[in-house]
Amino acid sequence: MTKLTTVKLRAPYLILIGDLGDPTYAKTGLGIVDWRPDLVAGQLRFAGSQVDMGVPDMSVAEAASAGVKSLLIGVAPIGGVVPDSWWDSIEEAARAGLDIVCGLHFKLADFPRLVAAAEASGARLIDVRNPPPNLPVGTGIKRSGKRVLMVGTDCAIGKKYSALALSQAMQEAGMKSTFRATGQTGIMLAGEGLPIDAVVADFISGAAELISPDNDEDHWDVIEGQGSLFHPGYSGVSLGLLHGSQPDALVLCHDATRKVISGWEHYDLPSIRDAIDQHLLMGSRTNPDIRCVGISVNTSKLPADKRIEYLATLSEETGLPCVDPLIDGCGAIVDHIKQLYGEK
Amino acid sequence: MTKLTTVKLRAPYLILIGDLGDPTYAKTGLGIVDWRPDLVAGQLRFAGSQVDMGVPDMSVAEAASAGVKSLLIGVAPIGGVVPDSWWDSIEEAARAGLDIVCGLHFKLADFPRLVAAAEASGARLIDVRNPPPNLPVGTGIKRSGKRVLMVGTDCAIGKKYSALALSQAMQEAGMKSTFRATGQTGIMLAGEGLPIDAVVADFISGAAELISPDNDEDHWDVIEGQGSLFHPGYSGVSLGLLHGSQPDALVLCHDATRKVISGWEHYDLPSIRDAIDQHLLMGSRTNPDIRCVGISVNTSKLPADKRIEYLATLSEETGLPCVDPLIDGCGAIVDHIKQLYGEK
Repeated sequence: MTKLTTVKLRAPYLILIGDLGDPTYAKTGLGIVDWRPDLVAGQLRFAGSQVDMGVPDMSVAEAASAGVKSLLIGVAPIGGVVPDSWWDSIEEAARAGLDIVCGLHFKLADFPRLVAAAEASGARLIDVRNPPPNLPVGTGIKRSGKRVLMVGTDCAIGKKYSALALSQAMQEAGMKSTFRATGQTGIMLAGEGLPIDAVVADFISGAAELISPDNDEDHWDVIEGQGSLFHPGYSGVSLGLLHGSQPDALVLCHDATRKVISGWEHYDLPSIRDAIDQHLLMGSRTNPDIRCVGISVNTSKLPADKRIEYLATLSEETGLPCVDPLIDGCGAIVDHIKQLYGEK
Repeated sequence: MTKLTTVKLRAPYLILIGDLGDPTYAKTGLGIVDWRPDLVAGQLRFAGSQVDMGVPDMSVAEAASAGVKSLLIGVAPIGGVVPDSWWDSIEEAARAGLDIVCGLHFKLADFPRLVAAAEASGARLIDVRNPPPNLPVGTGIKRSGKRVLMVGTDCAIGKKYSALALSQAMQEAGMKSTFRATGQTGIMLAGEGLPIDAVVADFISGAAELISPDNDEDHWDVIEGQGSLFHPGYSGVSLGLLHGSQPDALVLCHDATRKVISGWEHYDLPSIRDAIDQHLLMGSRTNPDIRCVGISVNTSKLPADKRIEYLATLSEETGLPCVDPLIDGCGAIVDHIKQLYGEK
């Protein structure tokens, strides 16, 4: 039987920018350069590109001879399709043996020329939106090591960013930690993971168990959240991820000015108290020792003079460190974790 | 754009029994004859069969000329495969224009001769385990009509049976009600539905919304549950179904002698109180008026003299009607529903 695993990418990456005119659409590529410069060998740009990620320009041939392992389509063009003029380069990369990694809505396997090129060289075509087959059902069996899961009062509220920032802050504080990806952009950043919202419903918690496997007792997996327990569309994903992750700790992610579920405006956001209490209640099913260790707040829409007051009040009400990770960093949450769980 | 719908089967059915020797493996077919005799035209048996469902024997040719619309593979043979000798008849049925309906683990579409026969006649090959494509994300928007959802302290604890019995009892009491199927056997019994545990995680509550659409204000959808909110493997399915169903009422299904999650024995069953409270807490997110209206208990493993005492004690503790639907019927729960929501 094949060993069950997450999607695993091969670094270093060449990131395809093409002739993109607007950096907005290069968010994925820019995120990788930002958070994981160690994975990036260079960028592939065409005449006319107005985006520069500040990494070396490389042709496919140069990348192949420099030992680059994967071409990442690091852009999300309007309409979600790759311009026709880019396909020659993508095919060339596959022919040169580079894995092609894509997070857009089409499937790489639907392009016969590309499939043929990849088959000839042994390159893999990896749609990071597609989970691998044969995922297991969740066992609920306890795993070794420590886990902290990002949860949110809504979707798209900073869970990925908070996880990346917290994992980095833990490492800076001398702790062992790994960012664990549960979505497509996260997978490109981490180099592995599973797109948890794309798995078949029966296997959500099983996939979550694969994402954060057994580890050293003093190692922390910092797990990217998905959806929200309070979201009328995506709550099932969030509960399966919560149960499968068996987190020791939660960080609640929130936006200081958001009042209703984004795009589902007929639903109010839960209160911070309810959000914490209900996550702890549900999470205690697979980890009775679960606790909330901090709140990560996007305060970007608050006036500057209200920001500190907002976080101080929230911290007083909840007894938890409350930070805007973009401004304050996650040091306060790391300190609290060290205090609760010991220096290790 | 195609209108989004559930899987819909065409009755009447011819049920394939073949040369089955043991009625245990004809559970699906026997269940349909039991609960929905109105859907069944006959049974297709071969020489040597020792199973008789008590409905007319029919050949494929007889069924076709009698207006039968679907051949249901109503058996689950050992190993989950259909004997080679049956395929000629299945192909003959497809060639005669009968839809082929199957709930086993293989895919009908993987049999090229069958695909060719179906294409020639316009018959459909329906694997009831496979959800249709293009399911929507849940909207959380309130729908008209009333809904009662079966939930459980565990999987495989009588949710489907309870829903069928409750729906029938409601109809006998003069109420409008429809059994709504969320699993493969239920779909064959209902003639439509969606296999909720087989949809992609992002679409669980969206699928649940399709299963119980808008209806008359005095109509009750009686929705088959799936999994359990307390199950380390399947809780995501259960929460998505709970949120998407937006039930007005819950019936908690339980087994009087079960102490641990079946197959996950390292997990205790929740207490009845916790099971009710946590379902109401979670369910109130999409229906603030949700309440528990009864408990359906499998008491078959209790000694006869303990049964009545067990149900009476449970009823006293919870203030709810508690029945074993197989022995007591669901009349007490129907009465309670009438009392709470009015005769309509």
